[in-house]
Amino acid sequence: MLMERIHENFLKQRFMTTLGAEMVLIEEGRNRIACNVTEDLEQQHGFAHAGVLASIADSACGYAALSTMPEDAEVVSVEFKINLIRPCKASRIVAEGRVVKTGRTLVFTEGEVTDESGSETYATMTATMFCLRPEA
Amino acid sequence: MLMERIHENFLKQRFMTTLGAEMVLIEEGRNRIACNVTEDLEQQHGFAHAGVLASIADSACGYAALSTMPEDAEVVSVEFKINLIRPCKASRIVAEGRVVKTGRTLVFTEGEVTDESGSETYATMTATMFCLRPEA
Amino acid sequence: MLMERIHENFLKQRFMTTLGAEMVLIEEGRNRIACNVTEDLEQQHGFAHAGVLASIADSACGYAALSTMPEDAEVVSVEFKINLIRPCKASRIVAEGRVVKTGRTLVFTEGEVTDESGSETYATMTATMFCLRPEA
Amino acid sequence: MLMERIHENFLKQRFMTTLGAEMVLIEEGRNRIACNVTEDLEQQHGFAHAGVLASIADSACGYAALSTMPEDAEVVSVEFKINLIRPCKASRIVAEGRVVKTGRTLVFTEGEVTDESGSETYATMTATMFCLRPEA
Repeated sequence: MLMERIHENFLKQRFMTTLGAEMVLIEEGRNRIACNVTEDLEQQHGFAHAGVLASIADSACGYAALSTMPEDAEVVSVEFKINLIRPCKASRIVAEGRVVKTGRTLVFTEGEVTDESGSETYATMTATMFCLRPEA
Repeated sequence: MLMERIHENFLKQRFMTTLGAEMVLIEEGRNRIACNVTEDLEQQHGFAHAGVLASIADSACGYAALSTMPEDAEVVSVEFKINLIRPCKASRIVAEGRVVKTGRTLVFTEGEVTDESGSETYATMTATMFCLRPEA
Repeated sequence: MLMERIHENFLKQRFMTTLGAEMVLIEEGRNRIACNVTEDLEQQHGFAHAGVLASIADSACGYAALSTMPEDAEVVSVEFKINLIRPCKASRIVAEGRVVKTGRTLVFTEGEVTDESGSETYATMTATMFCLRPEA
Repeated sequence: MLMERIHENFLKQRFMTTLGAEMVLIEEGRNRIACNVTEDLEQQHGFAHAGVLASIADSACGYAALSTMPEDAEVVSVEFKINLIRPCKASRIVAEGRVVKTGRTLVFTEGEVTDESGSETYATMTATMFCLRPEA
């Protein structure tokens, strides 16, 4: 149920399709989104653009947060900060989002972007998510 | 000269082409990148994805920084933070990057994403850029 | 009325007294807190400690936000990011907080720490503030 | 040797004395600073001021970074972001700083402020530190 709800929501994020991103893990409070770093996602030095890492990490954090909210709630990003630890030359990257603390209105999350094996970290993120309720 | 150097560098950012982004202003310490918010750049509620705003703002901040660096230097993002002030329903958005302080190694920048008229602000950013020199 | 309410609240912030800080401007959506950089506030190189700049900037942003909230509301910091532009050797510093956008629940603010004349900037901040209401 | 060098440096941070803070752990890449939350460190609701949490977390991150730098290097904070997860009513708090990646010029760190038992987290931080070398 949760998995279906989150996955259906993800499929509506047209920008994730544009990036060629897919959701590869859905748990309560944890989410993973992966994508192949094709040439279309590169910056001027042939590395993955920081915006690509930020985009999938933001979505992974958002869905990690959404998985801890009431069923009829919507999630919106308030802010995030990303640290670009090292240049990313991986052919495929995975962003994991994790809930640090969930509240009635705000959810604090953290994210990490690694290669597929998880052995190399390219970026870390902290993001604040807002819980939009039908009557709020 | 500066304008050409910056613009050529921008054209190598394949991800900017993927977003349909174009550089619309190049000055020393200031840069603007615009893009149309097509359906391909939307999140699940039909707004521009936070990652799109972050991507063009990061590039605009990076090029604002690069324009204050020596000619043979390269720019790399160290970190950025973006505040998502309000949902973005604009059909076209513009990110402006500005240098706050330029140093030998680090350049502090700030960015803002607005609609085309500049009257509505969707996001603000602060970003730290690193100056990579040939011999460094 | 507003000025009194904000100033009384500030006087309850015991930590501001510890820093020797005083509120020097109260407007709707804008606030200034100043303090002398005594030796007690220095780090190991004789500059003002980054935590001092962060503390008065956070309070200035918080009070700028509070000034735009309903009278019975309380303000709480959600997160802030500070950029330490240059080492601070000033004998007296001023932090200005400004509201960027005020909402029902969240207020986006920005801050700046300068010397007393405002000609030298030591730090910039963006901070998200939460509006706590009696019945919320 | 490392422990002595770090601890001596810490004792020069006059602001840490002002806060009543003490360094309670020094390892390569990891550092802990603790302090009692006296009334002098409180904000208007009787919680520890966000600036106090930020100050000791910034110092813990800085010393974690310094412990991975050459002996004659100095550490300076470039920027940090702090997330205020929950109000802090603890009588004593501990900030831990950890190195995420150390480089020639920049060190990426993360910090966490908890109660003394480590069971309650009040704040998380990410901070970028700069390595100042004698001849740089």
